[in-house]
Amino acid sequence: MILKSLFLPPSSSCKLFFSNDPLKIVKAKGQYMYDENGRQYLDCINNVAHVGHCHPDVVKAAYEQNQLLNTNSRYLHDNLVDYADRLSKTLPEKLCIFYFLNSGSEANDLALRLARQYTKHEDVIVLDHAYHGHLTSLIDISPYKFRNLEGQKEWVHVAPVPDTYRGLYREDHEDSVTAYADEVKNIIEHAHRKGRKIAAFFVESLPSVGGQIIPPAGYFQKVAGHVHKAGGVFIADEIQVGFGRVGKHFWAFQLQGEDFIPDIVTMGKPIGNGHPLACVATTKEIAAAFAATGVEYFNTFGGNPVSCATGLAVLDVIEKEHLQAHATEVGNFLMKLLKDQQIKHPIIGDVRGCGLFIGVDLIKDQVERTPATAEAEDLIKRLKEKCILLSTDGPGRNVLKFKPPMCFNMEDAKFLVETIDKILTDMEKECLNH
Amino acid sequence: MILKSLFLPPSSSCKLFFSNDPLKIVKAKGQYMYDENGRQYLDCINNVAHVGHCHPDVVKAAYEQNQLLNTNSRYLHDNLVDYADRLSKTLPEKLCIFYFLNSGSEANDLALRLARQYTKHEDVIVLDHAYHGHLTSLIDISPYKFRNLEGQKEWVHVAPVPDTYRGLYREDHEDSVTAYADEVKNIIEHAHRKGRKIAAFFVESLPSVGGQIIPPAGYFQKVAGHVHKAGGVFIADEIQVGFGRVGKHFWAFQLQGEDFIPDIVTMGKPIGNGHPLACVATTKEIAAAFAATGVEYFNTFGGNPVSCATGLAVLDVIEKEHLQAHATEVGNFLMKLLKDQQIKHPIIGDVRGCGLFIGVDLIKDQVERTPATAEAEDLIKRLKEKCILLSTDGPGRNVLKFKPPMCFNMEDAKFLVETIDKILTDMEKECLNH
Repeated sequence: MILKSLFLPPSSSCKLFFSNDPLKIVKAKGQYMYDENGRQYLDCINNVAHVGHCHPDVVKAAYEQNQLLNTNSRYLHDNLVDYADRLSKTLPEKLCIFYFLNSGSEANDLALRLARQYTKHEDVIVLDHAYHGHLTSLIDISPYKFRNLEGQKEWVHVAPVPDTYRGLYREDHEDSVTAYADEVKNIIEHAHRKGRKIAAFFVESLPSVGGQIIPPAGYFQKVAGHVHKAGGVFIADEIQVGFGRVGKHFWAFQLQGEDFIPDIVTMGKPIGNGHPLACVATTKEIAAAFAATGVEYFNTFGGNPVSCATGLAVLDVIEKEHLQAHATEVGNFLMKLLKDQQIKHPIIGDVRGCGLFIGVDLIKDQVERTPATAEAEDLIKRLKEKCILLSTDGPGRNVLKFKPPMCFNMEDAKFLVETIDKILTDMEKECLNH
Repeated sequence: MILKSLFLPPSSSCKLFFSNDPLKIVKAKGQYMYDENGRQYLDCINNVAHVGHCHPDVVKAAYEQNQLLNTNSRYLHDNLVDYADRLSKTLPEKLCIFYFLNSGSEANDLALRLARQYTKHEDVIVLDHAYHGHLTSLIDISPYKFRNLEGQKEWVHVAPVPDTYRGLYREDHEDSVTAYADEVKNIIEHAHRKGRKIAAFFVESLPSVGGQIIPPAGYFQKVAGHVHKAGGVFIADEIQVGFGRVGKHFWAFQLQGEDFIPDIVTMGKPIGNGHPLACVATTKEIAAAFAATGVEYFNTFGGNPVSCATGLAVLDVIEKEHLQAHATEVGNFLMKLLKDQQIKHPIIGDVRGCGLFIGVDLIKDQVERTPATAEAEDLIKRLKEKCILLSTDGPGRNVLKFKPPMCFNMEDAKFLVETIDKILTDMEKECLNH
């Protein structure tokens, strides 16, 4: 989306990157973008162009299907069956029902409907700073948004982010997993005392807007225990982090351990390499409860043959180009380079991540870990001058977030970290000279 | 969307056409679809494949842009500006701000947010039997859906459909326009007495699921008067009926007269000829109130260069192939042929429409106008055997709805009506023989 006025300057409803000096990008290929002067930029941000900008296999699949047929799902079509089949092979057996939609927001809205229909409960527990989408129902469950708008609905409960670097319980806590899960348990008990009932615990498998957080392994299992006991379901939002980005696993929730299976998984962004496509996967039981209302769910564009062909092509490329293994290899290398920088530059407080999902937490001081917000913004601006596109996240907007197209390689990682090193060195010198 | 299970038969959450004997369509071109045996079907239903299935110009535009760049709207791009510019030329000058999204449902949800943010009111007035989308917020304002689910929210008010054939005030009423508009006025007054405030009157410019209804001209103006007086806005949902389908005008709300301008217009289905694309157009004032919250609106896929290229190509084809004039010509011809049938077959109670949006209301008797539901279903089934795809709508599921791709031609109209004539004649004979 963009808000585009013909009579006004671009409105503030949509934030451009580098809004004071925005980029006009006209072309992209792999992990590179090109402006109208042919200047090449290394893209470290775009997790939507998952298998690389304009990947020829994905483009070709869409083109071929577009020439043949693109209609709604009122008719049978092999692509739909094939795609659901392929996706099911990446997931635990229990998650065997698929709904196809056009955006992560549509997916999260449907997940909410499924949870409520199945549990007959209304309330939702989310993590602080979470963002789950731009729809009315999702702003309600996104503290990142509702804190700045009309405020918190009575059916929404906010749990602390399981952030062991700057959260409530940190790396020095003897059992942060239990401590964070107990926070959810307390919320449930508090809600029950007020006569409220929990429909769902809604969480990004790796909180992104929250600051590129890696929840400690075992946390989801403990939370799921409490939530299931309360009659609720566990919804894993994989919109930002799914499809092999974390390297070791295809889905980020799998980082928690093999014994953890969510009740609902939502997918978006990378699923179609930019084509508007999304998916909700769930269990037979939840789907049956939804169907039992007798009210049909119809989505005009969702699951059309072109969308499915595109989704299938993305899965093919991930497999054919071994992008999951590649994400592990390059991600580990990048993490190592960044950790080397951490020793050299005191502004780097924490380097965390998995595969090609990495966060670098910039701080003003080691004790308070005060977010180095202005410094982060300055760094991003200087990186852009060096033709590297990076951005920040987290409530303090001080966490550098790396989530590049999956074809990002060792050379790119070296170039990126060398450039960061140079800029941080410059910034340190300038600081001393002031 | 479809719900696809690999271990269960297709679930009941998504209704297939002819679910007892569904079609497997593998190819489509223009107004024709082809099953896996190469059998050709005349498509009288698909208003999404607006300029014809797989139109080569639209397919080419998407392909070319897909090879070049497909990214989010964090960067400047000419397609976005060009597309907003082109759309603005089809609309009254006042509607000059555009938001791009991925589905009609996303558009209607945003329209609701805009209305509420601008008016600071909560309540919404909708027409009975209306359907505005599959999202949580839209099921709440869709009587077609919520009647079968948890029921009506306290902030939703339902006005009678301005249907002069089987509604509250009919063709014999001396002033049905005022009578129907007064119903809205009464709802507003009743809401005010309860201390509630109206954010919007939300209406399809031509109610579709409601039974292919053509509201009498002047109704929107009168309603808008009442709604504006109450501090609310008028939202015209053009998702089913926009983009020249009604022939005479580009937008269906324009059938009400030149003096009527909605505050918000939503667009979907035909806008991208099947590509997931949608749009909200509104005024500077409403957009400014939305931006003033300071909370950005970002839509990952919305307004990307490929979506805009596709939307532009659709506008080009409508123009180049004179599809609006074509819709008037073929629509008038089809209406005439159907009205001839009305004289011959007493089951045809009403033939109404404009351009290639036509409804044929089937009845059991002339006095009560009892919906001929079973007969309509039977007719649709027999048409399918004759390779014609048609469907029914309306609360009685007795209204044949014609909304074919816009390239539907005179020959198709003749073939369609001749076939309907034969089937109705057969049905009448069978009825006599029983």
